[in-house]
Amino acid sequence: MAEKHCRFGIMGTAGIARKNWKAIRLSGNARVAAVASRSEASAQKFIDECTAQVPQVSTPDAVGSYEALLAREDIDAVYIPLPTALRHEWVIRAAEAGKHVLGEKPAALNAQQVAGMLEACKKNNVQYMDGVMFMHSQRLPLVGELLKCDERIGQLRRMAAQFSFAGDATFLKKNIRVHSELEPYGCLGDLGWYCVRYFLCSLNGEMPTHVQARQLTRLQGTGSPGTVPGEFSAELYFASGVTASFYCSFLTENQQWFHASGSKGNLRVNDFVLPYHGSEVDVLTAQDRFEIDNCEFHMEPHSQRHAVREYDAGQATAQEVRMIRKFADLALSGKSDASWPAWTLKTQQVLDACFESSNQDGAKISMTP
Amino acid sequence: MAEKHCRFGIMGTAGIARKNWKAIRLSGNARVAAVASRSEASAQKFIDECTAQVPQVSTPDAVGSYEALLAREDIDAVYIPLPTALRHEWVIRAAEAGKHVLGEKPAALNAQQVAGMLEACKKNNVQYMDGVMFMHSQRLPLVGELLKCDERIGQLRRMAAQFSFAGDATFLKKNIRVHSELEPYGCLGDLGWYCVRYFLCSLNGEMPTHVQARQLTRLQGTGSPGTVPGEFSAELYFASGVTASFYCSFLTENQQWFHASGSKGNLRVNDFVLPYHGSEVDVLTAQDRFEIDNCEFHMEPHSQRHAVREYDAGQATAQEVRMIRKFADLALSGKSDASWPAWTLKTQQVLDACFESSNQDGAKISMTP
Repeated sequence: MAEKHCRFGIMGTAGIARKNWKAIRLSGNARVAAVASRSEASAQKFIDECTAQVPQVSTPDAVGSYEALLAREDIDAVYIPLPTALRHEWVIRAAEAGKHVLGEKPAALNAQQVAGMLEACKKNNVQYMDGVMFMHSQRLPLVGELLKCDERIGQLRRMAAQFSFAGDATFLKKNIRVHSELEPYGCLGDLGWYCVRYFLCSLNGEMPTHVQARQLTRLQGTGSPGTVPGEFSAELYFASGVTASFYCSFLTENQQWFHASGSKGNLRVNDFVLPYHGSEVDVLTAQDRFEIDNCEFHMEPHSQRHAVREYDAGQATAQEVRMIRKFADLALSGKSDASWPAWTLKTQQVLDACFESSNQDGAKISMTP
Repeated sequence: MAEKHCRFGIMGTAGIARKNWKAIRLSGNARVAAVASRSEASAQKFIDECTAQVPQVSTPDAVGSYEALLAREDIDAVYIPLPTALRHEWVIRAAEAGKHVLGEKPAALNAQQVAGMLEACKKNNVQYMDGVMFMHSQRLPLVGELLKCDERIGQLRRMAAQFSFAGDATFLKKNIRVHSELEPYGCLGDLGWYCVRYFLCSLNGEMPTHVQARQLTRLQGTGSPGTVPGEFSAELYFASGVTASFYCSFLTENQQWFHASGSKGNLRVNDFVLPYHGSEVDVLTAQDRFEIDNCEFHMEPHSQRHAVREYDAGQATAQEVRMIRKFADLALSGKSDASWPAWTLKTQQVLDACFESSNQDGAKISMTP
């Protein structure tokens, strides 16, 4: 690779791609070389709009098909925010074209598809990474350290997470995420993915032995042949004795919190997916004490805030920029890191088990290999 | 009733009775007339210790048996902190002796026992009330108002609560709450009771249509013939579409939070059972906004704190003192309020369904009448 920048092709013009357009601009080691859509005009429109706010160093080319993007020699990597149902095909085609792949989540329709994609990436010696931005925040290792701290948390016993937003009437009818063929896992794929990943990271990759899950509300967008989870809850059981519960929803206003509790204290992240606007990301720990002196009873809060200097988004230190920088580093190095695809596969496997349980009305689904 | 004070007999010398000893002293309309234990000496020891810190207006009598307490004519009401397995018998005997009853929770071993107790109270025209102190905090109606506020919460969709403490080695071996005959519901009875009650109050008494629950850890104290729930989780489903999840544990350090989320915002109480030491009790609401402007994405917190002047404990405005004052008012008035026993019965019915589900490995238990 002659250039010092990882040359990105953006495959699709989903809203989230605009955030990564800016992240690529800020990364320092990547640039957008081309944007592909099913029509050149819509790719050009996307480029024009993004450029008006965040000009790239040189203006990217508009490309009228995904095939044409993959055929270009001036592309090192593709970012794929296409609908989930299309990811399996395009990740494999990208890998076969020798392009590194940054893919949106959920990674594909099921773990079998993901395994196939990852195999293709491995075979073609390209890096695969999913687009979970919080994996690259400095907060994640901080949470890991605090969870390990025996004096603060003790033995971890319970994790809980909720991630939701309230889609408006248009969303609930027309958004791709309520279309059962394109996004069959609905809110489980879109939001539950983050909850599951945070649990797995908190346990250093330990997988649940079994899960139980329920679709609390089903949604069916206009033109969708079936329903998708619109509100979903699950409980995960780990061999270490830890249990974890998450809730995600397209019907419940913005929330994105993670709570871990152990034998000696608790830990809370109020904004684990999208850090609140600001110049620090933080974690709260607590070790409340119940003081009893004869007839006097008082519950005393003992909490502490742990913060890291890191902008929430749209700045060079932000997690999405770190993600692009890390991915570009790997792509430029030519040495792929197998830990990234491993996270993706594990997350998809847990999602599959949750979905299966929810289709059996909360039956216990074993994940023991 | 000639006296303006409700004359209490305390039946048993459990730790929590010391808190209510002080609450009775501060109530303004009640006083402790006698304390009974299985030996007069231990009743006297309890009285001496409590008096040293909080003297009553006149020193109560020590009584050497529960029967003797109930036979006294200078007792209007009894407070019963006896083990759960003994409550059914002693509530009925107290009612038959014409004493009003303030009982600790869980109310009895099952809803059938509770119904029998309540029937005896009704027949003998005495008030029954369970000892859930937060029912009397000014925070509960504030939470109710905020939950009703369409602009703040919108349509309620999800509630979650966790209540736990970490028992030490002695607790886990010798405490009554890990003895399967005396306290068969373990942490479900001791801690889950509060979670369930808060859910029911938040829904104005609406009952779940079904529940699913799991014993995550079982504990067995020394000399206990069987196990009790030591760590427990449950999910409740309501006809209105609301769902609720709780976790309680004897193995996880102090936490006691309630979270409700709706279509327009969220509400959080960090200390719903035992308010943190201080002069205000508070509730937090949030309506976070996700702002997207082309390539700029920011999650903005929009939260608000709502507070009421009310001491946490041990003062005349505190919730446990309000509880005694309310109960004494009812006892002195001679008019019983049927809403209090109704809350107790509903809570016990939900607990029974949760326990049954947990014994069937999380099976869905219907609560439809």
